[in-house]
Amino acid sequence: MKNYNIAILGATGLVGLEIIKILNERNFPVNNLYLFASKKSAGKEINIDNKKYIVNELTEEIFDNFKIDIVFSAISNELSKKFLPIAAKKNIFVIDNSSAFRLDKNVPLIIPEINPEDLDKHQNIIANPNCATIIGLMALYGLNKFATINSIIVSTYQAVSGAGINGITELENQISNKNMEIKQFSKQIAYNIIPQIGEFNNEGYSSEEIKFQNEGRKILHNDKLLVNCTCVRIPVIRSHSESITVYFDKEISIEKAKEILQFQKGIKFIDLPDFPTPIDVSNKDTVFVGRLRKNTLSNDNKSLTLWCVGDQIRKGAASNAVDIAQLYIKKMTIN
Amino acid sequence: MKNYNIAILGATGLVGLEIIKILNERNFPVNNLYLFASKKSAGKEINIDNKKYIVNELTEEIFDNFKIDIVFSAISNELSKKFLPIAAKKNIFVIDNSSAFRLDKNVPLIIPEINPEDLDKHQNIIANPNCATIIGLMALYGLNKFATINSIIVSTYQAVSGAGINGITELENQISNKNMEIKQFSKQIAYNIIPQIGEFNNEGYSSEEIKFQNEGRKILHNDKLLVNCTCVRIPVIRSHSESITVYFDKEISIEKAKEILQFQKGIKFIDLPDFPTPIDVSNKDTVFVGRLRKNTLSNDNKSLTLWCVGDQIRKGAASNAVDIAQLYIKKMTIN
Repeated sequence: MKNYNIAILGATGLVGLEIIKILNERNFPVNNLYLFASKKSAGKEINIDNKKYIVNELTEEIFDNFKIDIVFSAISNELSKKFLPIAAKKNIFVIDNSSAFRLDKNVPLIIPEINPEDLDKHQNIIANPNCATIIGLMALYGLNKFATINSIIVSTYQAVSGAGINGITELENQISNKNMEIKQFSKQIAYNIIPQIGEFNNEGYSSEEIKFQNEGRKILHNDKLLVNCTCVRIPVIRSHSESITVYFDKEISIEKAKEILQFQKGIKFIDLPDFPTPIDVSNKDTVFVGRLRKNTLSNDNKSLTLWCVGDQIRKGAASNAVDIAQLYIKKMTIN
Repeated sequence: MKNYNIAILGATGLVGLEIIKILNERNFPVNNLYLFASKKSAGKEINIDNKKYIVNELTEEIFDNFKIDIVFSAISNELSKKFLPIAAKKNIFVIDNSSAFRLDKNVPLIIPEINPEDLDKHQNIIANPNCATIIGLMALYGLNKFATINSIIVSTYQAVSGAGINGITELENQISNKNMEIKQFSKQIAYNIIPQIGEFNNEGYSSEEIKFQNEGRKILHNDKLLVNCTCVRIPVIRSHSESITVYFDKEISIEKAKEILQFQKGIKFIDLPDFPTPIDVSNKDTVFVGRLRKNTLSNDNKSLTLWCVGDQIRKGAASNAVDIAQLYIKKMTIN
């Protein structure tokens, strides 16, 4: 089996660090592992699982100076647009966590459990979907195979680590009353919640709220999918939760839905009286689904209400990126 | 103007204490104020706004031994069923915060801004609605006058003080790591959220979740109202938030809805880029509404999505109870 030279861009961030951890956990076939970050972090030593790594500065030259097969990128949209096309041109396989290329028709947007076939048409850049979108679609994709989803109403409960390490620090500083400064979020987050993630558009939806529909359409191959999303930041460190009501094109009973969820890859279904919460699912790759019930608004059995929770740093970002890399390697080996 | 002899049952709880505070704030025409609680609290001295009050034991005899005109009750369902009918029989006007009598056809369920006329048919007991129901309906009642509401999908973000003083203590103990004991809630609440408030019924809905539809039908005089509710406890001290999508029987434009909300009694409408959060609205009687926008799921202009937040101890409980008492006094004075 071939070993790969791997580069992590944005290696000092939460997602970058988690990717390194997952590569180790899964014994990913790594030849060399190169870490890159901004100039500020260059030279820094990182310890993960008793291994030491040195961080290099991310520049345009690294794709010439280092022999790289696969790039995991967890940098800003702006930096992604600058650096990733350079890597792709040099025939490096890039998995991008930013939203820069997600809606680009030449860039596959992949959740390996859902649309692995889309990987085949890549031009070296693969986009990793939005975290809340991955978690919600993981909960729903099995049901969508049985009965096509027409529309989704979702309200999210999103952890502060979605805003990176500084998001966690801001919550902890405010909770301990050490520093009440508001910087990462638009209002105080300690003992508070904020119904804003990203900027608002002219229709009054935040940038985070429009991702679920845009990315969901591409991933599920359903241009008519409608998603009404309300995204809310809450004072939880890790893992996003979602309250979902979903409408299908045909009848689906609770029993059928339960059966599907119980055998769906990547999902753990929790039946009442138990239910999943952020603390239960943190540091796990599985998305947990519970509180499955009829939608009291309609009698036609074509809709369901449910609750799902997933670690947005793991399956919502880092693990899904590594899943994509593993799918890529598998396809390379077969072809 | 007549002054009234007032009794507070459950005076040492969060709602009881808040009622005393509001009576003082509003210069409610009080002759004597008697405080009652369980035997455990009897003899206790309470200081509110630099006034001292002594707590008496709640027994069946108090309605004979004290001259009482109005009872504000904030005790359990079980105790409400035991004590309140005794008071009502003695022609004492009772405002009950428990859910014991809310769906009783002989008991008006009142939000004074919405259905003041229902007060006329009372048999001495008036029920104060569920906190999340009050906050949600306050946001919606003006719109409902313009276009009848057919159905509502709501996900809540409910503060720990909804479970009383012990709910706050449990959160604070867990946050400070002083005591991780789980007692008031079914799981850890610090840095976590719990999609369970009350027990689950056979359909998988919690007792809190079915109140909005049941009580909403009675308050809005609309037996066909459908509400799909997901109630979630979050690590916030005070004030409940709700993400709501509402469907009407006719068209209502964003502009029209905004106009209604801006002039609706008891409501403050916050336009983008600002929005209300729990900390913004705590200790206020007003329910705040924001994030008003089109429901992306339908093109018929018969539905809207919005966000509302209200202090569930104030308008969600204590202030609404005092509002009911003030309405009662006004009606008594007029008749």
